Amino acid sequence: LIGVTILGNNSALPAFDRHPTSQIVTIDDQLLMIDCGEGTQMQMSRYKIKRGKINHIFISHLHGDHYFGLIGVITSMGLLGREHALNLYAPATLLEIINLQLKVASTTLPFQLNFIPIEKNGLLCAESKFTVHCFAVKHRIDCWGFRIAEKKNPRKIDREKTLQYEIPTAFYERLKLGEDYTNKEGELIKNEWVTTPNTETKVYCYCADTIYDETMVAHVRDCHLLYHETTYLHDLKDRAAARFHSTTEQAATIAVLANAKKLIIGHFSSKYESLEDFLKEATAVFANTELAIEGVSYAVR
Amino acid sequence: LIGVTILGNNSALPAFDRHPTSQIVTIDDQLLMIDCGEGTQMQMSRYKIKRGKINHIFISHLHGDHYFGLIGVITSMGLLGREHALNLYAPATLLEIINLQLKVASTTLPFQLNFIPIEKNGLLCAESKFTVHCFAVKHRIDCWGFRIAEKKNPRKIDREKTLQYEIPTAFYERLKLGEDYTNKEGELIKNEWVTTPNTETKVYCYCADTIYDETMVAHVRDCHLLYHETTYLHDLKDRAAARFHSTTEQAATIAVLANAKKLIIGHFSSKYESLEDFLKEATAVFANTELAIEGVSYAVR
Repeated sequence: LIGVTILGNNSALPAFDRHPTSQIVTIDDQLLMIDCGEGTQMQMSRYKIKRGKINHIFISHLHGDHYFGLIGVITSMGLLGREHALNLYAPATLLEIINLQLKVASTTLPFQLNFIPIEKNGLLCAESKFTVHCFAVKHRIDCWGFRIAEKKNPRKIDREKTLQYEIPTAFYERLKLGEDYTNKEGELIKNEWVTTPNTETKVYCYCADTIYDETMVAHVRDCHLLYHETTYLHDLKDRAAARFHSTTEQAATIAVLANAKKLIIGHFSSKYESLEDFLKEATAVFANTELAIEGVSYAVR
Repeated sequence: LIGVTILGNNSALPAFDRHPTSQIVTIDDQLLMIDCGEGTQMQMSRYKIKRGKINHIFISHLHGDHYFGLIGVITSMGLLGREHALNLYAPATLLEIINLQLKVASTTLPFQLNFIPIEKNGLLCAESKFTVHCFAVKHRIDCWGFRIAEKKNPRKIDREKTLQYEIPTAFYERLKLGEDYTNKEGELIKNEWVTTPNTETKVYCYCADTIYDETMVAHVRDCHLLYHETTYLHDLKDRAAARFHSTTEQAATIAVLANAKKLIIGHFSSKYESLEDFLKEATAVFANTELAIEGVSYAVR
């Protein structure tokens, strides 16, 4: 889990050259897309995101600023001759919309689109290097957050020690998974004598559009990087609540309660041209906060 | 009919900061939108197009590069509090797509959306200052061109003459429409003695996406400004035909056959970074050709 690149950091109404929500999560050589507002394919070109490396797209909810760009991304992948499958995770109705749009254009995609409807909290996707869990958040319509975690890395073999204990190389894969070894003499060689733990597994959590909601904390606890929306500054907390959105202080409070290592905030209302006050208000509550800025990649560490 | 502003001049795959098709036609203080590819609302902000002045949107066909931006334009009009009705002319299925997208987001527009399905050649819209006729063009799916004409201007009254012939001011409106006047003595005062013809009425024709098709000429004859697509240069005329698109020379030939006063060409394939050869090839056939460039307004005269 290397980082998160912001393609859109604005709320519904595009303004000040800020775009509706989309993010790219980089895990080794794979790219995951989270949400896909209008213009995302142009933002991908602008920031040199390689479409071919995206095999998983997650859509948090069906407000247009989170998915109106998806059909463009999908059909452009088709025009560019993509052949490998694409997994799309989203509320069920999205498939109906996409199928209608493809049908009316007489378009057949040259690749397989696997649609996985998001229906309940839990494991959504398990790949060799990462897992994605989803959790319901509280918004005006069904809406989902995502917890993306590297899979636990195998342990590192200490070659000097394995030679010393005469462990055959055929057993190395099992050592990496943490197994102990028993030699021909029946002596137990404890795994921890011959291996060292690998680097910590990283976790990124994306909270989508949500009202302030402490029940979310359980789902994002101890993550290395937390994205939480902050549509409004603190003084508009009543408007935020009425529209099921959050403020700076609320986003930062969730980061504190969750023991997140770092917070990025976005989904700024088009009311605001300057974003300075967002950072000021959030860092007052949770120091390690950054603004989600388009084109910038945030390390997960 | 003052002019046509290009918001997108590219074909399906956005490239080189060129966008999918959209145009704004200005008639006095009204704006008409023709087609609405992804990102049109951002292009409108970039080129300072006033959304509130758009009361009519025409969608030529349901390939995504001509309508994926429409739902964004419509919902943003709603977010901005629009209250006056919007007329949308498009193939019928578009309404189904829009209704599904509004429903799943629990969105109720604060203004009335009047949907007028395009079904056959003829008059589509008659307003006080202009009319719009549509005509079927030949593309891979149902596709329509548009002929936008100013209404015939009333004749101009020559005040010196009307006083001389003692015509009452109450009859002026009928004079403007071309009627003769008979005075109390039963003498006929011919209309042409007391009025002069007004300026010529202007016509703009938009040919959408189309294969080379001379039957189109009848619908665009004698227009002041003609927009015709030129997805490819001349050397790719076979590919153009296979995909139901046109080349430079074909667009220019239609302009010649139709006796158009001026031609603008667009819908350039993302194969081409430079557009120079498009202009060179088209002007060789029809001299008064210009490239459709985003942000540029072309006068209709």
